[in-house]
Amino acid sequence: MDKFGSISSLSLWFLICIQILSRPNISFSQEIDTDAFFIKSIHDKALTDQMSYQWLYYLSEKIGGRIAGSPQSMAAIEFTKQILDTLGCTKVFALPTKVNYWYRGAKEQVRLINHQKFGNVDLNALALGGSGATSATGLSGQVVEFNSIEEAKKNPALMKGKIVFFSRAFDQKFIRTFHAYGSAVDQRGQGPNIAAKAGAIACVVRSMSSRTDDIPHTGATIFEKDVKPIPAVAISTKAADLLKSSLMDGQNATLFIKTSCEARGEKDSYSVIGEIKGTEYPDEIILVGGHLDSWDVGGGAHDDGAGCVQSMDVFYLLKQLNYKPKRTIRCVLFQNEENGLAGGREYARVSNSNNEFHLAAIESDAGGFSPKGFGFDADTSIIQKYIGNFKEWNSLLEPYDLNIWKGGGGADIGPLKSQKGMLFGLSPDSQRYFDYHHTEIDRIDAVHPRELALGSAAMTSLVYLIDKYGLAKP
Amino acid sequence: MDKFGSISSLSLWFLICIQILSRPNISFSQEIDTDAFFIKSIHDKALTDQMSYQWLYYLSEKIGGRIAGSPQSMAAIEFTKQILDTLGCTKVFALPTKVNYWYRGAKEQVRLINHQKFGNVDLNALALGGSGATSATGLSGQVVEFNSIEEAKKNPALMKGKIVFFSRAFDQKFIRTFHAYGSAVDQRGQGPNIAAKAGAIACVVRSMSSRTDDIPHTGATIFEKDVKPIPAVAISTKAADLLKSSLMDGQNATLFIKTSCEARGEKDSYSVIGEIKGTEYPDEIILVGGHLDSWDVGGGAHDDGAGCVQSMDVFYLLKQLNYKPKRTIRCVLFQNEENGLAGGREYARVSNSNNEFHLAAIESDAGGFSPKGFGFDADTSIIQKYIGNFKEWNSLLEPYDLNIWKGGGGADIGPLKSQKGMLFGLSPDSQRYFDYHHTEIDRIDAVHPRELALGSAAMTSLVYLIDKYGLAKP
Repeated sequence: MDKFGSISSLSLWFLICIQILSRPNISFSQEIDTDAFFIKSIHDKALTDQMSYQWLYYLSEKIGGRIAGSPQSMAAIEFTKQILDTLGCTKVFALPTKVNYWYRGAKEQVRLINHQKFGNVDLNALALGGSGATSATGLSGQVVEFNSIEEAKKNPALMKGKIVFFSRAFDQKFIRTFHAYGSAVDQRGQGPNIAAKAGAIACVVRSMSSRTDDIPHTGATIFEKDVKPIPAVAISTKAADLLKSSLMDGQNATLFIKTSCEARGEKDSYSVIGEIKGTEYPDEIILVGGHLDSWDVGGGAHDDGAGCVQSMDVFYLLKQLNYKPKRTIRCVLFQNEENGLAGGREYARVSNSNNEFHLAAIESDAGGFSPKGFGFDADTSIIQKYIGNFKEWNSLLEPYDLNIWKGGGGADIGPLKSQKGMLFGLSPDSQRYFDYHHTEIDRIDAVHPRELALGSAAMTSLVYLIDKYGLAKP
Repeated sequence: MDKFGSISSLSLWFLICIQILSRPNISFSQEIDTDAFFIKSIHDKALTDQMSYQWLYYLSEKIGGRIAGSPQSMAAIEFTKQILDTLGCTKVFALPTKVNYWYRGAKEQVRLINHQKFGNVDLNALALGGSGATSATGLSGQVVEFNSIEEAKKNPALMKGKIVFFSRAFDQKFIRTFHAYGSAVDQRGQGPNIAAKAGAIACVVRSMSSRTDDIPHTGATIFEKDVKPIPAVAISTKAADLLKSSLMDGQNATLFIKTSCEARGEKDSYSVIGEIKGTEYPDEIILVGGHLDSWDVGGGAHDDGAGCVQSMDVFYLLKQLNYKPKRTIRCVLFQNEENGLAGGREYARVSNSNNEFHLAAIESDAGGFSPKGFGFDADTSIIQKYIGNFKEWNSLLEPYDLNIWKGGGGADIGPLKSQKGMLFGLSPDSQRYFDYHHTEIDRIDAVHPRELALGSAAMTSLVYLIDKYGLAKP
């Protein structure tokens, strides 16, 4: 009883094409018709097949958290290589990268002792990547709170022998949550090192989160070379509120902390690379990528399984649409972004030593949410040379609520800036990202298949335009 | 230990203002500085207080589903009146509106009988609003499937004595999910009536959803005046897939259906209205609104609790920022949008009979997701007269990823178009809307407090601009 199905959906499709092509801000040149048509085909295919979501299910749920150096990270390398093998690559290979494997050990314990009202209270916590272990029996100490690392630095004597608590919350006034993260994350990244240098016995950080809830958020903390890592944990925002309130009016608070983290030393690991050789300009590389490692907790679905499966989806979509690129397209799944950036650095080193030129590098590492477009970055001289097509491209991308603007890039592609091509960062809606970032709940059910697919389609559309037109001013 | 808190957040705030004001596309006139400053203040307050989310918690969880005529709908009327009483209104009142109360009765049963592989299978289902009851013992019948209402209309003989199944899925290729809904919902709205007229004993419709899952979606179905409502249910998309597959290759399928819905007749109900009288142009009304009723299942959080609390939040934010409007601002929480539109119609009737003029009406009824801006609608003649400020306004709204474009409005404010003002519809990201629409899971946990607050701030910013500048071309 489906006989009208194909006819009605065909005519519907025709109507949409007409609608898109007849938008007043697109001129009716033959090429623009072709481009609008192809970009629509990319979106149609991405949204109907939703291939990225299927792969993300496997990566985040069947493999799970995959911190660099872990057994799961090797499973992720094997899985993505096997996928890339099916996507029409000229070659697929693994780029060796040494990584330092940090191991969480047993579930961490953080307990607020003798709270005035609640007695002993277990606080939801996760040890920070790179932090040290307590003794097997744990440690107890008095808590000293700071609102900023600057404040702590000025008061080293207050920290000696204490548990240092960095308590500054996200500033909700930022529209983009990445800015709130950027203005708070020094507490996690640098706070424990500052505390350790002042003789603190441990460090506790309020989780980097937009929400008030019970979810702790892990993440990297950095100790200077000659500083012995102390135990350092993030506690949930609700736990941080409780701890803060129990310190009000000069009251004392005592914490018990037990962690068993281990630096397991250098391991062999790999970034995964698939490449389609360009037919006309094989020396101009267009890179799409994300990072294959995640934290060890949760499934690393948004961070950054999403970026990996979207990058592979670019290859899938180009293959399905039978597109033969003029330039070389490379899918790079970087290793160890979370706690070392070894993969990104090594990729750039090898690329530079091979005298390669990345005309464009497009990174997706801001979650699998509805895409808003791309921020770009490059040397000023390069921007003057290249920024020719974007106004026309923005017209082509506008039916998909996409835009290209100045200011973007990504951690893994950053080192490629010196090759004097352009860097692009896929920029999705950011409101929910820091609900899930580095947590147990960054799993497949936090990702919407259509939002994820729209990101794949956005990346593929940009790859298509750069491949077809290049980036130089006409 | 918070001594640096206020200083650092102040300087941060200053930096953002500088950033916004120094955008190249905003000229440095005094007025635009003032506007940028005020719109930033609106967003700051909305995001830090998150008042809309607190109200939505009460509305969707403490009161819950509130179909027009139900006891819960009266609780929602009382709750919102009490809130509006605290928001500095010149007057708060309830506008009487007669509604037809449809009552679901006991949990519906839909069972696929003797499936080849699974035996008897219970299908997740919800009766459609307006549909009839089976006998107390239920009914059984053979299923006949149609892909469209056009196909059914051509084959009335096939429907007689049967259970008619409308099976067409959402077309995933639409970028905005409302278009997918629009192209599928005739099956739910008109299908059961067509089936009833052809002598079908019941009707089953595939749920209007973007996802493949186990969640059934209710919604209104309309029977012509002289057609007796038959039992009509929506089954989950997974259930629809199963039923469809069991009909493949000409196989038969039998369903058992039991519903106990009741038309409980006309009841007294109310739309809720709060008003702040304008100081200079009291006769020019700017309306903000959503609909207070929801379906009886779930909490009506996105549909349309979100629109109601955002509209009240406009008043809260204006009050907090001590803004005295020049024009009259009215918050209207319409009754009975879901199954009758009685509130919207009655509001326009009374307004017209009082010779009122709505300069602008802004409706929020597309979910509490990240706002993208506003679509507008008006008589063509009016658009020529009014559309003067939008380019400048778009520059002011751009830091918040907001835009104003042609094509929008809303069901409840639609009847006001004849007053020859402008209609605006708040347009949030639509990807997740039809995961929750008319379901048990449209609850507070499906709404993000920041996304909801950004919608409040967007509406308040537009109200501020219209109030300050009017809509006529300069």
